[in-house]
Amino acid sequence: MKYRKLVERWCVFEAVLEGREDKNPFVDYKVQGIFSSRSEKVMVNGFYDGSGIYIIRFMPSFAEEYHFSIFGTCSKQQYEGSFEVFEVKEGNHGPVRVRGYHFEYEDGTSYHPVGTTAYVWELQEESIQHQTLETLAQGYFNKIRFCIFPKHYQYNLHDPISYPYEGTPCKLNDEKTDDYYQLRGIQPGNDWDFTRFNPVHFQNIEKSIAALGELGIEADLILMHAYDRWGFSQMSPEQDDQYWRYVIARFSAYRNVWWSFANEYDLLKSKTVQDWERYAQIVLEEDPYHHLRSIHNCVSMYDHSRPWITHCSIQRIDVYKCAEYTDDYRKRYGKPVVLDEIAYEGNIDQGWGNISGQELVRRFWEASVRGGYATHGETFDRSDGVLWWSHGGMLYGESPERIKFLKAILDETPGAGLRQKQSWFFDEVVGTADEIGDSGYYIYYYGFNRPNRRKFYFQDGVTYKAEVIDTWNMTITDVGEYSGIFTIQLPGREYMAIRLWKVNRA
Amino acid sequence: MKYRKLVERWCVFEAVLEGREDKNPFVDYKVQGIFSSRSEKVMVNGFYDGSGIYIIRFMPSFAEEYHFSIFGTCSKQQYEGSFEVFEVKEGNHGPVRVRGYHFEYEDGTSYHPVGTTAYVWELQEESIQHQTLETLAQGYFNKIRFCIFPKHYQYNLHDPISYPYEGTPCKLNDEKTDDYYQLRGIQPGNDWDFTRFNPVHFQNIEKSIAALGELGIEADLILMHAYDRWGFSQMSPEQDDQYWRYVIARFSAYRNVWWSFANEYDLLKSKTVQDWERYAQIVLEEDPYHHLRSIHNCVSMYDHSRPWITHCSIQRIDVYKCAEYTDDYRKRYGKPVVLDEIAYEGNIDQGWGNISGQELVRRFWEASVRGGYATHGETFDRSDGVLWWSHGGMLYGESPERIKFLKAILDETPGAGLRQKQSWFFDEVVGTADEIGDSGYYIYYYGFNRPNRRKFYFQDGVTYKAEVIDTWNMTITDVGEYSGIFTIQLPGREYMAIRLWKVNRA
Repeated sequence: MKYRKLVERWCVFEAVLEGREDKNPFVDYKVQGIFSSRSEKVMVNGFYDGSGIYIIRFMPSFAEEYHFSIFGTCSKQQYEGSFEVFEVKEGNHGPVRVRGYHFEYEDGTSYHPVGTTAYVWELQEESIQHQTLETLAQGYFNKIRFCIFPKHYQYNLHDPISYPYEGTPCKLNDEKTDDYYQLRGIQPGNDWDFTRFNPVHFQNIEKSIAALGELGIEADLILMHAYDRWGFSQMSPEQDDQYWRYVIARFSAYRNVWWSFANEYDLLKSKTVQDWERYAQIVLEEDPYHHLRSIHNCVSMYDHSRPWITHCSIQRIDVYKCAEYTDDYRKRYGKPVVLDEIAYEGNIDQGWGNISGQELVRRFWEASVRGGYATHGETFDRSDGVLWWSHGGMLYGESPERIKFLKAILDETPGAGLRQKQSWFFDEVVGTADEIGDSGYYIYYYGFNRPNRRKFYFQDGVTYKAEVIDTWNMTITDVGEYSGIFTIQLPGREYMAIRLWKVNRA
Repeated sequence: MKYRKLVERWCVFEAVLEGREDKNPFVDYKVQGIFSSRSEKVMVNGFYDGSGIYIIRFMPSFAEEYHFSIFGTCSKQQYEGSFEVFEVKEGNHGPVRVRGYHFEYEDGTSYHPVGTTAYVWELQEESIQHQTLETLAQGYFNKIRFCIFPKHYQYNLHDPISYPYEGTPCKLNDEKTDDYYQLRGIQPGNDWDFTRFNPVHFQNIEKSIAALGELGIEADLILMHAYDRWGFSQMSPEQDDQYWRYVIARFSAYRNVWWSFANEYDLLKSKTVQDWERYAQIVLEEDPYHHLRSIHNCVSMYDHSRPWITHCSIQRIDVYKCAEYTDDYRKRYGKPVVLDEIAYEGNIDQGWGNISGQELVRRFWEASVRGGYATHGETFDRSDGVLWWSHGGMLYGESPERIKFLKAILDETPGAGLRQKQSWFFDEVVGTADEIGDSGYYIYYYGFNRPNRRKFYFQDGVTYKAEVIDTWNMTITDVGEYSGIFTIQLPGREYMAIRLWKVNRA
């Protein structure tokens, strides 16, 4: 057995041991561990990594001394050991937790998800993966949605670099590769052993999760989706359960993992609500760290009020209005609202993938001032065939810089985040600090409206510092202090906001 | 009695006679006329025009010889006469009627309302009125909404050129003239005789209706509204009824008159549904020409399914989505849908008055392809204080030229107009010719979406002529003929449309 004696808090402790290789170790043998410190005692499942190697991973939540024992049918031997957990280094705030309608890291630092989507970036050739990480290092986003299973969909009909199971994939019919619609559904010619995982596939995903962790980016892992020619979306309940358990055993010790149960769960026609609820039961039982859990819709929303769901992961269900429903979703579900799909900046032939940077950034702001969160995606139809939304790579749009600008503003919110303040009729949407009575902090966002000035009145004798924010040109202009009835001049352009801070008289 | 012996069909025949001046001729004496030709027999009410003059107006619907008799308590004398009605000259198609979800002139020519709003343009000084008519002569619009009563509202606090009643208005409190909100409601100091109309006021409006008629523009006359410091919105039922009867007697012989019962009827807090229904009864009884009738909302829509309402006159009830509800309104009310207020191009401080030209034109197109109609308005905060939406004058925005471009396209629709074709999910909205089975005429509108191409398939062996329409840059590009599965290239910009015409093989 090999392991390190010194581990950072909320990082991965890993014990590697040799064990039985006969029969099918993925299903016939087990390995488990119990980890104890002064403050916690946690039981975790390990997994078979191929070639006679079994691995146990554990994420310590305290900077304390830990003792562990490892046991199972994989080996006659039972292991004992101990290691020291040291306090975090900069940039490690622990896993993300829900706080009211918002999020925070386990160390209490606010976390405002500003996500992107690149469904199978980790299954592209090495050079594109590398590019993706370089792009993400620019700090535009702090969450990325991607899939464990490979994806078969428009612009992404090629084979992934690895498959999750032993076996051989169907051949892609070359004559039809330009048209996904001709190739919908499971194709003939697949030959998979769904009882034997391909460890290389999962090792690659772990490497990706870890690389994202280094960049301070949450890995919103999508466990299931319907865009499939190989049959991974139509396995039996037993095969599904084995997959979920394997994924949890492998990935849950990574603090930046979120469980997104599905992309467009309602397109997985062979799965029922009972199936999703059974997966939830497995996750609740086997993930000892309580990573965030969500399930994302296509047309019909899942009931986000189910107790196992930590936050809403929503795809727009209307072409014209989506982020504007944020407050309605907050009220309906009583949970954080993350609008994970609100159309992408791009120019492809599909309506979900060809809005402007302005419109995407507007949707981010509309969600944000209402106390919700939005997710980016980019779909430019390029000659190299590399589209961020599917493959990662480079970004060409105008929205990422503006989203980064918004992220910085969200990080200045007092308290956990914003909520929508009741506003006068049709004129504006106003965000104020959530969970705080009179926060004295207001963001008036005007979206596609273009007022040349706005009048304010709060109460006599109270002074506000005012800033004019150009959300598109990314400027924040201090326009002075005001009290009583006052007017702020604006340029009469779209995408402007006014931020007011009550001046404390200390 | 004076009258002309030769009248154009659907124009105003007018008989002017002298009568009693004692007591209060507006209420104490009546004058009526009966007009008969081979094809119709119509009874109309006349009105008192002051200075002992009574007038009877009549609009002949047939090019025939008419005989008439005029009688009433206004005079002991009974008059008889006759006149010849000649067939229309170019540009006169008769009054506008409803045809299914659309409109047509009485001569059967299609009429697609493309309106604007200038609430009290006719109550501004002569030079601005003149400017307004010059602007309208550019042919941007074929309908204009305006009020009979003067308007007291932001940007329009000055006195009108005339008042509808004898008496004196309240003085405007000079200190507060910059702020309508300080001056809401009826102000003290008004002294009106609500039993005596001011004929000059109504003569001016007639002149305006006639001038619009010359330009081929429908006068969508707003009879009541709440923006009032004089008390015209809070008269008694008897005073209201006298007003409605007087307006009908004076104006209904003008073929281009529409009756808009109110602007924002729900803001007239002293009026009940019973009041509106009573006015409707009066109009039905006293307007022999059946001019179009509508009633426009602020927040709560009137029940447009009421039989007296000929078409829906709708103000948006949502900031983000309005024209997109057109098909829902058609289904709900079963009548033409005219979106008479969907925010204005401008830059004032109010959200309803500061959208871009792009957004306003987009809303026109969204309404149009769904088989509805939209109305323009412009609110730029100018140093001269003249805002089109209230005063008329000149237009400074980018939308009017584009609206005119749309109007020309609507006029090319086969049949009465468009309706929304069921479209695939989120990608587009498609208009097709209404009332026609397979019209072979399709407009695919992409709004804020920016596809770089679109794929089509109707049926094998049928050829379509395709045009790419840039609704903002106002170009129509013939891109050839296609059949089977075909792809049309697009520039990946916003506000594009594709029009397809089935090619007839004669």
